[in-house]
Amino acid sequence: MFKGIITAILFFVFTSYCGFAQSEDSLMIKKISEEILLNGKASQNLYTLCKSVGTRLSGSAGMYKAEAWGLKALQEAGADKAYLQQCMVPHWVRGKKEFAGYRTKNKKTDPGFDVLAIGNSVGTGDQGVLAKVIEVKNFAELHQRKDEVKGKIVFYNYPFNKTLLRGAYGDAVRYRSNGASQAAKYGALAVIVRSVTGAYDDNPHTGALRYNDSFPKIPALAVSTKGADKLSGLIKGMYKDENLFVRSNCVMLPDTIGHNVIGEIKGTEFPDEIITIGGHLDSWDQGEGASDDGTGIVQSIEILRVFKTIGYKPKRTIRIVLFANEENGLRGGTKYAEEAKQKNERHIMAMESDGGAEYPRGFGCGMTKEQFAKVQGWIKFFEPFDATRFTFSEGGGGGADIGPLQTNFKTPQFGLSTTGQRYFDMHHAASDVFENVNTQELNLCAVVMAAMVYLVDKYGL
Amino acid sequence: MFKGIITAILFFVFTSYCGFAQSEDSLMIKKISEEILLNGKASQNLYTLCKSVGTRLSGSAGMYKAEAWGLKALQEAGADKAYLQQCMVPHWVRGKKEFAGYRTKNKKTDPGFDVLAIGNSVGTGDQGVLAKVIEVKNFAELHQRKDEVKGKIVFYNYPFNKTLLRGAYGDAVRYRSNGASQAAKYGALAVIVRSVTGAYDDNPHTGALRYNDSFPKIPALAVSTKGADKLSGLIKGMYKDENLFVRSNCVMLPDTIGHNVIGEIKGTEFPDEIITIGGHLDSWDQGEGASDDGTGIVQSIEILRVFKTIGYKPKRTIRIVLFANEENGLRGGTKYAEEAKQKNERHIMAMESDGGAEYPRGFGCGMTKEQFAKVQGWIKFFEPFDATRFTFSEGGGGGADIGPLQTNFKTPQFGLSTTGQRYFDMHHAASDVFENVNTQELNLCAVVMAAMVYLVDKYGL
Repeated sequence: MFKGIITAILFFVFTSYCGFAQSEDSLMIKKISEEILLNGKASQNLYTLCKSVGTRLSGSAGMYKAEAWGLKALQEAGADKAYLQQCMVPHWVRGKKEFAGYRTKNKKTDPGFDVLAIGNSVGTGDQGVLAKVIEVKNFAELHQRKDEVKGKIVFYNYPFNKTLLRGAYGDAVRYRSNGASQAAKYGALAVIVRSVTGAYDDNPHTGALRYNDSFPKIPALAVSTKGADKLSGLIKGMYKDENLFVRSNCVMLPDTIGHNVIGEIKGTEFPDEIITIGGHLDSWDQGEGASDDGTGIVQSIEILRVFKTIGYKPKRTIRIVLFANEENGLRGGTKYAEEAKQKNERHIMAMESDGGAEYPRGFGCGMTKEQFAKVQGWIKFFEPFDATRFTFSEGGGGGADIGPLQTNFKTPQFGLSTTGQRYFDMHHAASDVFENVNTQELNLCAVVMAAMVYLVDKYGL
Repeated sequence: MFKGIITAILFFVFTSYCGFAQSEDSLMIKKISEEILLNGKASQNLYTLCKSVGTRLSGSAGMYKAEAWGLKALQEAGADKAYLQQCMVPHWVRGKKEFAGYRTKNKKTDPGFDVLAIGNSVGTGDQGVLAKVIEVKNFAELHQRKDEVKGKIVFYNYPFNKTLLRGAYGDAVRYRSNGASQAAKYGALAVIVRSVTGAYDDNPHTGALRYNDSFPKIPALAVSTKGADKLSGLIKGMYKDENLFVRSNCVMLPDTIGHNVIGEIKGTEFPDEIITIGGHLDSWDQGEGASDDGTGIVQSIEILRVFKTIGYKPKRTIRIVLFANEENGLRGGTKYAEEAKQKNERHIMAMESDGGAEYPRGFGCGMTKEQFAKVQGWIKFFEPFDATRFTFSEGGGGGADIGPLQTNFKTPQFGLSTTGQRYFDMHHAASDVFENVNTQELNLCAVVMAAMVYLVDKYGL
């Protein structure tokens, strides 16, 4: 009986405490959301990054402008300390505008297709490549028809599968990433890849490739989706026996110096426990790098700003990292984790936003089952924002840049997850501009990111 | 023991049957989604509606063009029968471009503000209204300062509250709907209303007002959000004692003839049980009426097209209704329910899409608790599309046009629910154009609508 009363009292005390803590947390998250939704600076920052800095490929002048901008933005957001962390980055240069068009035997000149050299690709040089085209639907067809490939240009016309609502990019991107070496293996002279996008327009979408050192490095170009259909039609039709001329002047120069740009708020209770939040500062050289990954950058800075503005003093050290060179090397993320290991830092959580700023739906959670159970206990705080889709992957990643932290430290990873149906329409293309980012959705992403950081900072993981 | 075995067998038979039915349904919904996502015609239809027909306010030439287009589109989608249902519609005409700007005592002319007459409003006529402006934050301030209102122009500067993620429009729209009569009650000569939008730009957003017949009908204009801030600054600053000149030439003409445009597939088993699906064909006279409600129109037509294309023969009669005059009268929806009552039709379900075509999240369900329980049992079919947010309102509505069916027949209502953070940025404004609708999101909305129609058709409600 007595024991029962004690249990009841303890239960009452415990639930009251929990109720109190929850209501305190709800109030804090409400405060965070109101500050961001009503007075947010993310959109203004994005505007400056897009319009004053512009594209910022590793090694380009834009990269240096972006680093200077990032340092200033972190200082203005209220960082206790903002600094650069040096790392070597690849320096790929596009050179003059690419060309792809038919040169027929009777010297008629085709107006050509909308193409872009694929990042990291070698160029054809001014002399170009003049050859017949073999169109393949996929790698299976390439392997099957390997005897026809020698001396030709391989055209991968693999469509972006719109029925794979969250997997179409991963499904199609292998032709851009590995298509060149796969074709070179059978003696192809160059490859053209249908742009990895759900959009149907004239914008070619670039991105990185990786050469397999066992095979010759051959030039690779992306063609717009409309261009791909046009090319496919011509191959089967009037230009069946004609040669295509492709020219690209891109070149990989020696590595150069780049930087991660970092801003911190020092933790009040556990300053040695580090929470890393970031996106990548580099972008491709098309459009403005607005959604890839300007939005991740300005959301991360916004978290720091909102904590400072509402006077929330984190227990742990909050480190905002604007990573260098995600696009064609991952040198920034690699360097960050290396230095962390050298300094024997304690990394208790990492979060990345690199999927644009559409309506947030939750997080991809790469961590242990026990950690995920704790995170799931917080789901109620995300209900007001409809951001309750927490997906679990044991020991999985939350983003490319924070991946090395997982490898080095088993740091729990959060990747912002959004509705994500528009991102690849503009990805690595001329259409990735500020005007295609919605301010309210951008701010909502920052709200849910800040709320999760607040909870992990307060309760640990 | 024997009873136990029988129970076990029955249980096995029942679950096997359910499993079979579920898998058949999953397959059918997969088929629906693949047809729409890969071969969908909604975007193409929307392009034609936006670019060839354009705006289509009740009584305008655009309305007649839209009706002809709608009839043809329904026929092309494969309707067994497509026809017009006549109804009288209001005929409000904007007249020449509105103006609002300061006329100062020293005759300096202000360049003016971006304004639009609010729909159904009376005009000032060419002589305009020249008066001082009193700015109020809300109705409470208006009532408090009622003695200052006489002979003035009331400026409602109530902001769109971005922290109300799904309620900001409802919260702010009362100033546009009722502001004129509330101010007229205290002797105001005209009103200017801050546009009901989360966008911060130069586009004024129109929309309807309702006059209260107890008070004089005074002119009402909407000002863009940037314009509202500029006006607010001038009122407090340099133009404190100056008169604002406003002019509008809008006028309400006598009612004219309009039509609901209807396309049907006749049910194979229960042809007398009718499922109504629709949006509204009319739009305001700004932009192209793309999201309001071109998207609802083309999604509804797409449901009919997909059923025909994949060869699904509905048990019940599917009726696609492109409603007339939602924007400033609701005459189409009213007429449709009236005729249904006269003909003693059986309406077992109604669905409306009138919130744009952002990423779908589920449905607002206005029905009985029992019906809602049945609908919730289908939630698993919506998980692949992340459209699982089913909200319940007992006997509530699913959309303005289908509301009268609820009143007349207690017909269960489904209103498509989306993420909805972008819709009001463009709502009733020049920015509501085709380019601001994403094809994949548009198609996903059609998928979840078609899936729900399929389930209700098959199992009833």
